[in-house]
Amino acid sequence: MEIFLDCLPCVLRQTLEASRLATDDLDLQRKIMEDSIEIISHYKDYECSPDLCRTIHKMVKSRTENKDPYAHIKSRDIKSAKQLLPYLKDFLKEKENSLYWALKIAATGNIIDSAVNNNANMTEYVSGELKKEFLVCDVKLLENKLRTAKNILIIADNAGETVFDQILAERLLPRNITYAVRSNPILNDATVKDAYDSGLDDYAKIISTGCDAPGTILKDCTDEFLNIFKNADIVISKGQGNFETLSECGRPIFFLLKAKCPLISKRLEVSLNEYVFMYK
Amino acid sequence: MEIFLDCLPCVLRQTLEASRLATDDLDLQRKIMEDSIEIISHYKDYECSPDLCRTIHKMVKSRTENKDPYAHIKSRDIKSAKQLLPYLKDFLKEKENSLYWALKIAATGNIIDSAVNNNANMTEYVSGELKKEFLVCDVKLLENKLRTAKNILIIADNAGETVFDQILAERLLPRNITYAVRSNPILNDATVKDAYDSGLDDYAKIISTGCDAPGTILKDCTDEFLNIFKNADIVISKGQGNFETLSECGRPIFFLLKAKCPLISKRLEVSLNEYVFMYK
Repeated sequence: MEIFLDCLPCVLRQTLEASRLATDDLDLQRKIMEDSIEIISHYKDYECSPDLCRTIHKMVKSRTENKDPYAHIKSRDIKSAKQLLPYLKDFLKEKENSLYWALKIAATGNIIDSAVNNNANMTEYVSGELKKEFLVCDVKLLENKLRTAKNILIIADNAGETVFDQILAERLLPRNITYAVRSNPILNDATVKDAYDSGLDDYAKIISTGCDAPGTILKDCTDEFLNIFKNADIVISKGQGNFETLSECGRPIFFLLKAKCPLISKRLEVSLNEYVFMYK
Repeated sequence: MEIFLDCLPCVLRQTLEASRLATDDLDLQRKIMEDSIEIISHYKDYECSPDLCRTIHKMVKSRTENKDPYAHIKSRDIKSAKQLLPYLKDFLKEKENSLYWALKIAATGNIIDSAVNNNANMTEYVSGELKKEFLVCDVKLLENKLRTAKNILIIADNAGETVFDQILAERLLPRNITYAVRSNPILNDATVKDAYDSGLDDYAKIISTGCDAPGTILKDCTDEFLNIFKNADIVISKGQGNFETLSECGRPIFFLLKAKCPLISKRLEVSLNEYVFMYK
C-alpha cells in the first residue's frame, strides 16, 4: 500500500511518542523531531508507510542509544494480557463456533495497549471489544482450507496481542504452526523474545521474518521465512502494518485486524474501528 | 505560548485538511504538503503556533489561488448557527444566572463546526454541550467589573461561533461593545464579512484586529485595534488561538474557550474538552 499524505502527520505524531519513550532529554526529543521532519520530507523514496517508519525509528534508537524504546510497554502489555488468559479461555469455552471466536480473540488482542492505558477496568474494556463481531469474516473459507491444511503461518503484530494469539494457535492444532515476528524491536511490535515471553512456543515454531519494519516487507525477509510464506497452506496476517505491506503481494492471505486507520478501513471498505477477517 | 513539538504533527494534519478544501487537484495537495513540511522544518523561526499556521495557510492560498478555502464551511456554519438562534434564546430565558449562561452559550459556539459535521441531530448535540458547565468560571469577577465598565472588547474566534456571540453581546448591552475579527480569511476564523453575516452589527462595532493569523499577534495589529485593546474596561478573548497569542501579553483578559488541545488544557490546568472562563 502506497504512502498517503495522511500518513505524514500520523508518522510524525508517532515519532514524538517514541522520542518521549526513548529519552527524557527534551533537547534530544527536539532533535529527533527535526531529523524526523527531514526524513519525512523524502517520503517519496519509501515504498510504504512501514518502510518510512523503520527509517525514522532506527534514527530514534540511534539518537537515544535506546535499542527498544517500547520495551517496558511491551512487557507491561504481555503481563496484562496474561492476566486475561483465563478469562479469554472461559469466553471461548462458552461459544459454539470456537473457530470464529478464537479468531475474534486474536483480533481483539490488538487493543490490549489502549485497554491497559486508558481503562480502570481492563477486563470490562476487553470484554466489550470481544463481543463486537467481525464486519467481514471469511471463516467458512478458513474452515474449508483447514480440512486439508498441514502448515499454517501466522504473521504476528504487537506484543501483548501475542498472548491472545495463543488461543488461536491452540485452536489450529494439531497442524504445524509457524509464528513469525519482527527481526528487531520496532514500536511495540512483537520480536522473538516477546513471542517466547507470551508463551507461543507451546503451540508454534517461533521465527523471525528477517524484516525489522513495522510490517512484512518481503524483499527484506530471510529465505527461511520466504520459504514458509510461499509453501504454507494458510497464511494469517495480523494487524495493519502487515496488511499495508502484504495486501498486494500476490499470494492469498487471511488478513485479521481491527481497522484503526481511516485509510486502511477505506481500503478494506469497512467503517473505522471494525474488525475484519478477510481473504484476499 | 511557544510552539510545542506536539504542534508540529497537528499543524501538518490541518494543512492536509486545508489543501483538500482549497483544491481537488491531488498533485497540488501533494505539493502543498511538501511545502508545508519545508516550512515546519523552520518552526523555530516562529514565535507561536498561529504564527507558523499563518505562513502555511498563506502558502495554501497562494498555491491554489483560493483566497478562502474555508468559505463554504464558514457560510454553512453561520447558516446552521442561525437556525439554532431561537433555541439558544429560549435556553437563556429559562436560566436564572443569565450572564453565566450567555457566556456558556458563546463558549459552546466553538463546537458548531463539529456539530454540523458529525451529527444527524445538531440541536441535540449542541444542547448536550450547552448543559456542560464551566470547570473554571470567573463570572463573579466579570459581574464586578460590569458595574462600572463602559467599553467592552470581544475578540472573536470562528465563523458560526460568531452567531452564538450575539447572545453574549446582547447580554452585555447597553455598554459599548467592539467585536474584533481577523483581517483576512484564515482557516474557519471569522472575518469582518463573517461577523456582519452573523448579525453582530446589531450589538457591536465590528472591526478587524489587523492580524491575519489564527490568533491575535499584537505586533501585527492596527493602531485602531491596539488602542481599543489597551483602553477597554473588559476584554473577552475567545478560543484557543487568541489564548495562545494573548495569554502572556501583560493586560488582564477574560479567556472564554473550550480546551480542545491537550497542551492548552494543560496550560489552563483543566482536563481536555472542559469549558473555561478564566481571568488572567
